[in-house]
Amino acid sequence: MTMTEISSVRAIVWQSHCLKLLDQRRLPREQIWFECQTTTHVVDAIRSMVVRGAPAIGIAAAYGVVLAAYAHRDQPVAQAQILLVNVMDQLAEARPTAVNLMWALAQMREVLFSENILNASVDWICQLEQKAKAIHQADYDDNFRMAELGAQWLAAHVPQGKKALTHCNTGALATAGYGTALGVIRTAFQKNIISGVYVDETRPWLQGTRLTAWELQQEKIPFEVIVDSAAASILRQGQVSCVLVGADRIAKNGDVVNKIGTYALAIAARYHQIKLMVVAPTSTLDLTLNSGVEIPIETREGSEILAWRGEWLAPEYAQAYNPVFDMTPAELIDVIVTERGVIENPAAQGICF
Amino acid sequence: MTMTEISSVRAIVWQSHCLKLLDQRRLPREQIWFECQTTTHVVDAIRSMVVRGAPAIGIAAAYGVVLAAYAHRDQPVAQAQILLVNVMDQLAEARPTAVNLMWALAQMREVLFSENILNASVDWICQLEQKAKAIHQADYDDNFRMAELGAQWLAAHVPQGKKALTHCNTGALATAGYGTALGVIRTAFQKNIISGVYVDETRPWLQGTRLTAWELQQEKIPFEVIVDSAAASILRQGQVSCVLVGADRIAKNGDVVNKIGTYALAIAARYHQIKLMVVAPTSTLDLTLNSGVEIPIETREGSEILAWRGEWLAPEYAQAYNPVFDMTPAELIDVIVTERGVIENPAAQGICF
Repeated sequence: MTMTEISSVRAIVWQSHCLKLLDQRRLPREQIWFECQTTTHVVDAIRSMVVRGAPAIGIAAAYGVVLAAYAHRDQPVAQAQILLVNVMDQLAEARPTAVNLMWALAQMREVLFSENILNASVDWICQLEQKAKAIHQADYDDNFRMAELGAQWLAAHVPQGKKALTHCNTGALATAGYGTALGVIRTAFQKNIISGVYVDETRPWLQGTRLTAWELQQEKIPFEVIVDSAAASILRQGQVSCVLVGADRIAKNGDVVNKIGTYALAIAARYHQIKLMVVAPTSTLDLTLNSGVEIPIETREGSEILAWRGEWLAPEYAQAYNPVFDMTPAELIDVIVTERGVIENPAAQGICF
Repeated sequence: MTMTEISSVRAIVWQSHCLKLLDQRRLPREQIWFECQTTTHVVDAIRSMVVRGAPAIGIAAAYGVVLAAYAHRDQPVAQAQILLVNVMDQLAEARPTAVNLMWALAQMREVLFSENILNASVDWICQLEQKAKAIHQADYDDNFRMAELGAQWLAAHVPQGKKALTHCNTGALATAGYGTALGVIRTAFQKNIISGVYVDETRPWLQGTRLTAWELQQEKIPFEVIVDSAAASILRQGQVSCVLVGADRIAKNGDVVNKIGTYALAIAARYHQIKLMVVAPTSTLDLTLNSGVEIPIETREGSEILAWRGEWLAPEYAQAYNPVFDMTPAELIDVIVTERGVIENPAAQGICF
């Protein structure tokens, strides 16, 4: 695959009446498209991690509403509104932590209950479909804006030409394309601000090993995968200038909930005086919550830790505790990059533009 | 298996002319004994992690010398001495970090070159065999002493009845029996000083998931396995009173090299003001080194991270960086427990008795 093809990797494809998702459980080994013809398929895809990454989940959910609209196309609008609210509730419950899901559904709901919806000149389903496409495209565009802003900030604030360290996958696969933290990494590498990347493997799903490594390899950005617990000792070695992560939800005070392990990384980065950058679109902000402790943290099955692809690794009745996100308090974060601007030292000012 | 049987789990068994090792790559699924009839078998067993854990490696190496002695039993002693020195070099090179290996070989070498070795009344091979057995038995006894000392210290210094958090496997399987850090955990649980354990899975070999969980389950000590990167956020939750780890080598100034991830855990423990205890026999001390930066850190194949049991998880040509130990500076350690006594605040005084 060439560079040109890569910048266009899109893991979410809408073809009328069908949402196609590049199955992220099967990558990098197999590139298989999971086809959603109904909202139930979309709920399953989100829940089972066919699609993951906060922005990507939001986009998928928006199209999930469109699929429901098509299913109810013969109903009167007033009736469809009631049915679709129910569908949105199902989508909202698919995963609890990433707020982009709720944000995208709120956007769709706004269209569904707008005055225009009864405007006979534009079909109501068409209005919903256009909104979902707009959410999709805006996320794509926002990634490039964040990448530019983030790279600029790094150029001004960290030693040049060292390595970045990142956690989980925040690339094209986690978004409409290009990526949040990984978008900044791509752009910073092109501008020689960073020279390579340490990739946390990111247990238990190995998004780093499987997905981030796949994206970086295609772009010919040098990288090494490490076990998550090696990050701290690598930061001590002095070759890393910055730690970049995404976010699943950000509270008003700047506290960030992100993939489990982010908090450990934030403590280690601060201990070594290495800058921590969070990159997330404003759809990740939840300004209804004053602090991060109010953000629900999803806990998944212990078997995700204790088994690998059906093979049980632990003793038979072992228990595991599997919170898949953690909360990093604002005071450990040096900068939050959004498409609307950069928030330095969020602990001092909270989230405001 | 009952409690009584458990305290006698011995993963290293010497039957004359054969060293039997419980194969730790296969646990907990299969309990298979790896039989070493030659020193080469022992070198392979150490290198390939059939036997792991600093004290266990030392014991295995001592028996490896005995196997070589039997192989050269028809040689005159002076000739055998030369051959055995060569064998010891091979054993010493099997793994570079844990100093117990070198310590045990130095013990064996001392016997081999002692004046007594030419004493016709005791066969020279018998003298070596007795020394190896003595090293084995002393490690076993020392574990109980450390467990007692460590539990006493915890009783006096941490809130009672909370949980411990531990990394890797430091139990009966890593030693002659009972364990170092896990020995303290066993005894502290029996005395109600702790109520349960969070077990780091410990990537990439999953010694926590496979081995520590197996030992704790047999002893009916409540535990939950977590991904390594979850430890920091669990420490924040306030249910953990202490973090306990073993060591592979300790320098004169109290710096500790141990399984990768220990340093990250030490930073997180200090950040949350939770005590960090290192438990290791004096055979783990390397007083020839002034500080931990002089300790060699073994780096193993990237495939240990990028593949699982032959199944490649990453993209085809991905690279990984796989240091399997890290160095924790003395200032992050609250106490080091050895069989000869407890060293509080090692950064202040270094290692002295």
